[in-house]
Amino acid sequence: MLIGGIEAGGTKFVLAIGNDQGEILEKQTIPTEHPDYTLPKVIDFFKNKGIERLGVGAFGAIDINQNSPSYGTLQETPKTDWIGYPFGRILKENLEVPVIIDTDVNVAAMSEAKWGNATDVDSCLYITVGTGIGGGAYLNGSTLKGLSHSEMGHIKIRRHKEDTYKGNCPYHDDCLEGLASGPAIEKRWGKKGHELVDNEKVWDMEAYYLAQAITNYIYILSPERIILGGGVMKQQQLFPLIRKNVIEMLNGYVSSPYLTEDEIDQYIVSPGLTDEAGVKGALYLAMMETV
Amino acid sequence: MLIGGIEAGGTKFVLAIGNDQGEILEKQTIPTEHPDYTLPKVIDFFKNKGIERLGVGAFGAIDINQNSPSYGTLQETPKTDWIGYPFGRILKENLEVPVIIDTDVNVAAMSEAKWGNATDVDSCLYITVGTGIGGGAYLNGSTLKGLSHSEMGHIKIRRHKEDTYKGNCPYHDDCLEGLASGPAIEKRWGKKGHELVDNEKVWDMEAYYLAQAITNYIYILSPERIILGGGVMKQQQLFPLIRKNVIEMLNGYVSSPYLTEDEIDQYIVSPGLTDEAGVKGALYLAMMETV
Ligand SMILES: Nc1ncnc2c1ncn2[C@@H]1O[C@H](COP(=O)(O)OP(=O)(O)O)[C@@H](O)[C@H]1O
Ligand SMILES: Nc1ncnc2c1ncn2[C@@H]1O[C@H](COP(=O)(O)OP(=O)(O)O)[C@@H](O)[C@H]1O
Ligand SMILES: [Zn+2]
Ligand SMILES: [Zn+2]
Repeated sequence: MLIGGIEAGGTKFVLAIGNDQGEILEKQTIPTEHPDYTLPKVIDFFKNKGIERLGVGAFGAIDINQNSPSYGTLQETPKTDWIGYPFGRILKENLEVPVIIDTDVNVAAMSEAKWGNATDVDSCLYITVGTGIGGGAYLNGSTLKGLSHSEMGHIKIRRHKEDTYKGNCPYHDDCLEGLASGPAIEKRWGKKGHELVDNEKVWDMEAYYLAQAITNYIYILSPERIILGGGVMKQQQLFPLIRKNVIEMLNGYVSSPYLTEDEIDQYIVSPGLTDEAGVKGALYLAMMETV
Repeated sequence: MLIGGIEAGGTKFVLAIGNDQGEILEKQTIPTEHPDYTLPKVIDFFKNKGIERLGVGAFGAIDINQNSPSYGTLQETPKTDWIGYPFGRILKENLEVPVIIDTDVNVAAMSEAKWGNATDVDSCLYITVGTGIGGGAYLNGSTLKGLSHSEMGHIKIRRHKEDTYKGNCPYHDDCLEGLASGPAIEKRWGKKGHELVDNEKVWDMEAYYLAQAITNYIYILSPERIILGGGVMKQQQLFPLIRKNVIEMLNGYVSSPYLTEDEIDQYIVSPGLTDEAGVKGALYLAMMETV
């Protein structure tokens, strides 16, 4: 069976045709422009290639509730041309195959569970710390969704006692994303993350915020693995700082060998997939989920 | 098919034999004493009655990870006699049927989804605000579990600016449970909740804390309904206060008609089941889950 997969990002779209073993047979990358211009290219790529299903991991706040009339429509994104655009419906009408749409982070979690750093467990949480902060999860054999999709980056956390930066989330000022995203780091310290490598205070504060969020995610979701990706996590020194803070904050409350100094480096980890994670996850999504 | 169900609470055990329509055919309630004394009574009740499966909704911090060697063992509870007691294994060996164990709050969520106030949706979150604060969820056709079970009551939240009470969680001082459980209310204000009905400040502060937690749960789990139970929630005036705070805190970020002033009273609701919720949920658990 041939399947289509799309990693729909704010910068570029990766399009692929693959089989149910996750092998990619054909691939193309196109820039994300106005949807009137980008979508015909997407349709062209998949048209008459014999795909039987199409999976999409999408950027923005996208409606992934299959019972909703706006399923597959972007609701909120800095790429304003795309807001309200019935992305999923147009693909479905033009390609005449089932189209399954999920958030990019849910698809990344699914992809890590199938082909990456969480193949040995039944559930995982994927968090990206980049321009924004987002999280997706794979559990009970499916991605996490409900009323809407998760917006894990917008939880309220406690401020670090030395932090005077007001936060830059347009909705909540100092939610997690408002305090700990890449742009928040840049605005607080006056330089981009990669120019602040030697400033210990930056990474201590960043780890404090991310660890607080991760502790909450553990209490609420109890994932069997946590994968941290995105531009900011290229600062590898964050990993040991985050792990140490998580253990301190949990204070022994959740009993698992993974949540000890000895094993936490197998619990909070980097992504196992790089380049093709999004598009491979989209193929898997198309195989796994029904519409 | 006959099924057994147990609501195993810290005060009492409710035992029931039912069928797969959720009808209860025989029921008994016994006090929770030392396990050496209580468990033989439980076994007696079910022995030779022809049950084919047994579901248990259990108090305490209980291991519900089926891959764990301590599955069905209580790990942490004020009833210290029960800590480390291989509760699930003993039932299984003596009754020779599959025993499926889950937390009381997961079972309550499942029961509300099947027979209570969440029968019209696919996922729900059940939160109890009583001696402790706990949460369980039903989603993707199963209860929420992973590395361990959820401990939603122990998330960190921001303190109310007028709150000087240090919090009473033995692990974290001022986590949600440490600030907003029934005993926390009593210690902060010097009287039990039901004696504080006319003190507006009490309920404003309580609603502020619970709404913060609920907002985080929405961002992370995105449940299609939230059910609030437990002794403290008998203060019905909390419901409108919580709903108002949740809408303010979300600040329009999650777009759903349910999260508007008009419909939020259908989203954040009381339990639909009372007396038999736990034991009916345990029957359903035994039907639904595999071991
Ligand atoms: N090596 C790095 N160290 C620290 N921060 C980085 C690094 N690389 C990128 N970032 C930050 O991450 C953000 C971009 O995140 P990224 O995950 O690459 O893209 P996006 O989130 O837009 O998909 C920017 O704010 C950038 O400053
Ligand atoms: N009507 C009420 N108003 C306010 N608080 C109450 C009320 N009833 C019980 N509580 C408080 O709830 C807690 C007991 O919670 P409950 O859910 O009844 O039991 P448990 O959590 O032990 O199963 C106590 O701290 C008690 O003070
Ligand atoms: Zn925010
Ligand atoms: Zn606590």
